[in-house]
Parts: sequence; structure tokens; C-alpha cells
Amino acid sequence: MSQLLKVQCFNLSRDGFGAGEGQSPERPFGHADPTGLFSWAGATASWVNRTDPGGTRGLDDYFTRDHTQNVGAEIMGRNKFSPYRGPWEDHEWQGWWGDNPPFHTPVFVLTHHKRPSLTLSDTTFHFVDATPAEVLARAKEAADGQDVRLGGGAATIREFLDADLVDTMHIAVAPVDLGRGSRLWESHTELLDRFHLESVPSPSGVTHLLFWRR
Amino acid sequence: MSQLLKVQCFNLSRDGFGAGEGQSPERPFGHADPTGLFSWAGATASWVNRTDPGGTRGLDDYFTRDHTQNVGAEIMGRNKFSPYRGPWEDHEWQGWWGDNPPFHTPVFVLTHHKRPSLTLSDTTFHFVDATPAEVLARAKEAADGQDVRLGGGAATIREFLDADLVDTMHIAVAPVDLGRGSRLWESHTELLDRFHLESVPSPSGVTHLLFWRR
Repeated sequence: MSQLLKVQCFNLSRDGFGAGEGQSPERPFGHADPTGLFSWAGATASWVNRTDPGGTRGLDDYFTRDHTQNVGAEIMGRNKFSPYRGPWEDHEWQGWWGDNPPFHTPVFVLTHHKRPSLTLSDTTFHFVDATPAEVLARAKEAADGQDVRLGGGAATIREFLDADLVDTMHIAVAPVDLGRGSRLWESHTELLDRFHLESVPSPSGVTHLLFWRR
Repeated sequence: MSQLLKVQCFNLSRDGFGAGEGQSPERPFGHADPTGLFSWAGATASWVNRTDPGGTRGLDDYFTRDHTQNVGAEIMGRNKFSPYRGPWEDHEWQGWWGDNPPFHTPVFVLTHHKRPSLTLSDTTFHFVDATPAEVLARAKEAADGQDVRLGGGAATIREFLDADLVDTMHIAVAPVDLGRGSRLWESHTELLDRFHLESVPSPSGVTHLLFWRR
């Protein structure tokens, strides 16, 4: 089986935004209330950040359970890693995730600004100035036969879609509108010439959109 | 996380049967046409018996993809292993699955009739005369920290439900009626005092029933 590039558990507002405007260290999703976007995942037994026992094991849990399966590397945009723009003033910022980030694989952060690699527990962040195709080649090599997850944000997913590099995509559309922010699409129908789509409403209120290549 | 006993991808007719009447070496599911029960799984990219590339990667694929995840042992009934009843006349019958069965773990076959263990590739079948609780304890030990899958058939699942040993259960209800055979339930509503339930219709025509303990 060849290695896939896959988007897993990417949260989107009903009006097409992955995050709001005005990202800051205190507000990784800008003006958006993350609870409205993410609560479906947090309620499941298998959510990667769950620390207590319990949680649901229904439909939504299949998606959180699959989030890390057969993933050997992640690619993310600069703005998923950090609220800062432009050259790195220093290397104090080490991501939002504390000393034990939930990736546990190599992570390739797309940025035009050089920075040395950073290892936290079993996650190593590599900062890469490259085209989508180039960084995907590096990530596949690092993933050692496993798939590569494309972590977002929306602008980064958009770049990989435009380069036609995405194999499968799971988008969880939450019943909230953001009005402005980081947009993934005007309408998901723009992808249907290239992808199969299944739309699966969940009892939790989100709708899971599942895309795979035609 | 404690080890779960879980039913995964168990196929059922709309009227509650896991197999038809009249099992024989040529007809493992008796009078039932297996295509009607199983075609949803066979169409997916991740189905365990798939040999060619391709296949769907929508909702149904999440279930076939999850089928083997974190499973360290299986428990099955005698009638899932063999069409014969009573004492083993010889040991020529080695299951329906050829030289490389799709389990790849220890498999505990419940039978009142002694038979030596049988290894085919990386699957070893152990033949056990024990209560559900006893065989579950053995399977959990063999699973080495991973979960145990309860493979069926319907009568075996029923025994474990009656002993209140099942943690999660995924039943794929196909749009076919069998009229007679191996029955799992009169109605799944009889389980709702003990289990949460989500019912998820799939575009393929099956309905996925997801149970987890209250």
C-alpha cells in the first residue's frame, strides 16, 4: 500500500473557517471559541489529549481513534505552530503543546524563516522552507512507510489541495459560524470533480465530511 | 486503559440473524447469501481480505480499518470455526481461511470437545471448554495489554452479553431478511438498559449500530 497524505479530524465552522481572526498566544484560534469547534472530539474516549477515563465510544470515537493510526509524520503550517509572524526573534516559543506534544512523530513546519529543529519528548519539529511537493517527499521518507498527516491550518491544506497532493480528508464541520478568519473553502462542492464525498451527520451535532480521490 | 472485549464488524440481517440455517463446508452461512451481508465491507479499501488496490475510503472504511486495531486475541464459537458438530472425528478441518487466516493473533475457539492447538502462519487456534468469563481471562492474558475481539457467531455473542462481559459492539445491519438461522436478538432495544447506542446509516445501505457500556 502506498503512503497517503491525509487530513484527519480537521475542525471547520459551517461557513468554512478553520480558525478565527486575531491569533495570539492566548487565543490560538483568534476570535473563534475553540469549544464550539472541538467539543465533539474532546467528548470521545480516544481523544489524544484525554487524561481521565470515560468518554463516548460512538461514531465520533472512530474518528479520534483513527487520528493517529498508521501516521508516521505530520506536516503543518507556521500558524498552527506559532502565533508569531515573520523571522523568529528567538526560539523561546516551542508550540502550544507543552513538554509532551501529542504528535510523537517528526513534524514538518512550513516557514520561510530558518530555525533549528526542536525535540520535545518523542516529537521533533523541523522548520522547512519548501514547496508542498518537496516537504511531502521529506515527510514520507521520515514516516518510514506509514502515512503522513496534513495537520492544517486551513491555508496549508488549501496549498496542498491546489497542488493536488491530498489523498484523503476528514473535515468535521461544527454547527457554528465564524464570519471571518482562516478559510478552507467557499463551498466543499468545489472539490467534487476530484474527490468522492460522503457526508455523515453525527449525534454530537457535527457533520463528518469524508473525501477520497476519484 | 483497561482491555476491552469488543465486537467489531459483526454482520447481521435486518431481522436479527448472523447466519442462516443449514451450515455446511460449502455454505458457511447456511441458506444466507453472504454477499448481501458482507458486500459493504468488501468494497472498502481496508478490508482485511482485500488483495487488489482500490476500494472506498468513506464511512464504511473507518469500520474495516478499525477491525484489527489494538486487537491482541479473538474469541469465537465452534460454529464460526467449523461446520461440524460434536466430537472432532479428525483434525483435518483447519477453519475456512486457508493457510494464512486473517487473525494474526491467538484465537480461542469455544468447544466442549478437546482438540490440540493449531498454528497456521501467525494465527494459533486454541480449543477451549470454559465459561465466557474463563475464556475471556485467558484471551486477555494472551492479548498482552491489547483488546480482545469477540468474533461471533450470534450465539457466542449472546452468551457473552448474557454474562455482561461485552464492552463495545459494532453491528452492521444489512438490508436483507433471513427469516431463520442464528439469532442475535429479537430487537436491539433489549440492550438499551445497559448500553449507549448510536445508529449510523451508511451510504452503502447498511446501518452501523454502535454500543458501548453505560
